[in-house]
Amino acid sequence: MTTYKIPVIPGDGIGPEVIAEGKKAIDAAGEVYGYDVEWLELPLGADHYLKTGETVSEDTLKELGRHRAFFLGALGDERKVKTGILEKGVLLRLRFHFDQYINLRPVKLMEGVETPIKNKTAKDIDFFVVRENTEDFYAGIGGRCTKGLTSQHLKLLREAYSVKFDLDVLTDSDEIGYQIGVISKEGTRRIMDYSFKLAQQRNKHLSSVDKANVMTDIYGLWRETFQEVGRNYPDVRTDFNFVDAVTMWFVKNPEFFDVIVAPNMFGDIITDLGAMIQGGLGLAPGGNVNPEGTSMFEPMGGSAPKYKGLDKVNPIATIWAGALMMDHLGEKEAAKGILSAIEANLREGRVRTYDLGGSSRTSDVGSDVARIIKMQGRN
Amino acid sequence: MTTYKIPVIPGDGIGPEVIAEGKKAIDAAGEVYGYDVEWLELPLGADHYLKTGETVSEDTLKELGRHRAFFLGALGDERKVKTGILEKGVLLRLRFHFDQYINLRPVKLMEGVETPIKNKTAKDIDFFVVRENTEDFYAGIGGRCTKGLTSQHLKLLREAYSVKFDLDVLTDSDEIGYQIGVISKEGTRRIMDYSFKLAQQRNKHLSSVDKANVMTDIYGLWRETFQEVGRNYPDVRTDFNFVDAVTMWFVKNPEFFDVIVAPNMFGDIITDLGAMIQGGLGLAPGGNVNPEGTSMFEPMGGSAPKYKGLDKVNPIATIWAGALMMDHLGEKEAAKGILSAIEANLREGRVRTYDLGGSSRTSDVGSDVARIIKMQGRN
Ligand SMILES: CC(C)[C@H](C(=O)O)[C@@H](O)C(=O)O
Ligand SMILES: CC(C)[C@H](C(=O)O)[C@@H](O)C(=O)O
Repeated sequence: MTTYKIPVIPGDGIGPEVIAEGKKAIDAAGEVYGYDVEWLELPLGADHYLKTGETVSEDTLKELGRHRAFFLGALGDERKVKTGILEKGVLLRLRFHFDQYINLRPVKLMEGVETPIKNKTAKDIDFFVVRENTEDFYAGIGGRCTKGLTSQHLKLLREAYSVKFDLDVLTDSDEIGYQIGVISKEGTRRIMDYSFKLAQQRNKHLSSVDKANVMTDIYGLWRETFQEVGRNYPDVRTDFNFVDAVTMWFVKNPEFFDVIVAPNMFGDIITDLGAMIQGGLGLAPGGNVNPEGTSMFEPMGGSAPKYKGLDKVNPIATIWAGALMMDHLGEKEAAKGILSAIEANLREGRVRTYDLGGSSRTSDVGSDVARIIKMQGRN
Repeated sequence: MTTYKIPVIPGDGIGPEVIAEGKKAIDAAGEVYGYDVEWLELPLGADHYLKTGETVSEDTLKELGRHRAFFLGALGDERKVKTGILEKGVLLRLRFHFDQYINLRPVKLMEGVETPIKNKTAKDIDFFVVRENTEDFYAGIGGRCTKGLTSQHLKLLREAYSVKFDLDVLTDSDEIGYQIGVISKEGTRRIMDYSFKLAQQRNKHLSSVDKANVMTDIYGLWRETFQEVGRNYPDVRTDFNFVDAVTMWFVKNPEFFDVIVAPNMFGDIITDLGAMIQGGLGLAPGGNVNPEGTSMFEPMGGSAPKYKGLDKVNPIATIWAGALMMDHLGEKEAAKGILSAIEANLREGRVRTYDLGGSSRTSDVGSDVARIIKMQGRN
């Protein structure tokens, strides 16, 4: 029997509650499909930061780096730690450190779940968003400058780069904030390759998202690379779409999409909208994948501190993320078992949390899914 | 009787068709409310660019600058001119040149129009988005660099600014594209002031949009300024929201919003999603406003070249933009007259274009609205 050592970071707010249910499902599947998990709990998040002053230590990174995958609950608590510190210091740090360049987001409306948009059923909402996860405006390059510095900074920008519009309105300003997005050819190639391959396994249709009509430099590179890489996959139909239009189509005709590839920031936005049309954040799992390295699996919802300890929030996203993780680790049958138990739970609709109109507790839903996993395993 | 001289740029694709109906409504309202319009037609767009090689000439800018407002159809034709050239060279150039820092977008579901989201009626979808229209990632600063240059560019970035994440993945890359967003304190203050004042005239609730947990530098400034300016408007309730969450709430609980203030790029995205929940781009008007200068009014939809000449698309967005323009010019009663005629046309539902499930032509809808304007004027 294989034993997996899987680090787990329950994190802040409702993180520990949903992670408990994710583990429950994975353990249950282990009984059926014949593996064991040794969970290695790591205490990252707001409390850890307040106690130790550290976001992630080198030791923790080293420990995580020994494994092919780890499991994350949720990070951040605005009441305790200023916005941005834990998001950038832990979550994005982990994604970047382990070069998890693929953020994989299945957007799938399950039977038995209501979508807030009209006239759409489970067969209409079933696509994948592949979000580039290491570059773009997430690169963390930016700053602020105050009067006096302003014109010097602007001069630098003008000299270093071809400034195309005049910035007169800014030179008079007492203060500016700026942010630099960077996309590399290499970074774009690899995410395109992954996305085309995924499309080949599905309905052979890949849609790229950009805003190349305005941010011509950064997204020009993105679009060109999409076209270049596409030449190696002549069996995949392609189109590019402006991000503003994509948000409209998610609501109007989500059935258009099969696989979507998006730069980091636009990917962030459309995956949340995707969560909404599949029934809410409580149902939205995410994988942060480095095929050759250490990957991280998490529910897309935040830590929701005000729900902490109420045993109320939906654990399905976390359980689903667990299925993605076991799939990644090679336990294909177990992953399918977990997913089909989620589907059965949602289709039956007896045990569900408040966000889906039910009154069951977080732990009840987790137990129900675990029960179904075992029951299906006996058949 | 006042005579207004109003420049009009019909532009590309369906631009001329919808502009014709916008003018028809404004002229009809002139008969009722006692003004005359002398339309000054200016031939900008794809054909003009192909013929003359110029996007906008200095002379045209000078001519436009003599007026308080002008009317725009749509620009761009991807089949003739490469993506980005006309968008940046004309549309954004006009917004920037005239410092039209307010992009005003009423998001209002009219009675008789179907929204694609469930359980929402006209009273639930009725808010304004105020999009900052001159800064952010629309500043047009960016570039590409190839191997060899890369590390020099990165060194420059590192020296000039505080680079917070390591960019090792990029230094190995053969090519990068980058884009720099800039927000100024002054530019943020003025848009906040405008938005707070608008909220005071409505339900005294202003929501700010940002992504200050990731793009901490640029949107940190935005958020701080929102808070600072807010101290001058203690009667307005405020909240800030991450852009990804805002897209979810547009679909889940649009009734939450009263006035929204957003930086340029996020504003672009959420106003399109806003168009969708109010029934589509055919119903979405926009004003590009400089209260002390020259403003521009336009429908939010694109030029849709493949519909050109079919007399098919919905002119309501353009007519509504015309109402915003007349309001801006001080013709408050005429603006109300046009808007109430739009409302009557949509409520009655007999004369409507294909996007609203009808089979009327563009020109039929314009004529119907003009008829109602005159009829209402007689009562
Ligand atoms: C918390 C935040 C930094 C994060 C992101 O923007 O990537 C989140 O929204 C996500 O989508 O995982
Ligand atoms: C055409 C494009 C440049 C423009 C923008 O991004 O601002 C459009 O989408 C809009 O919203 O007016």
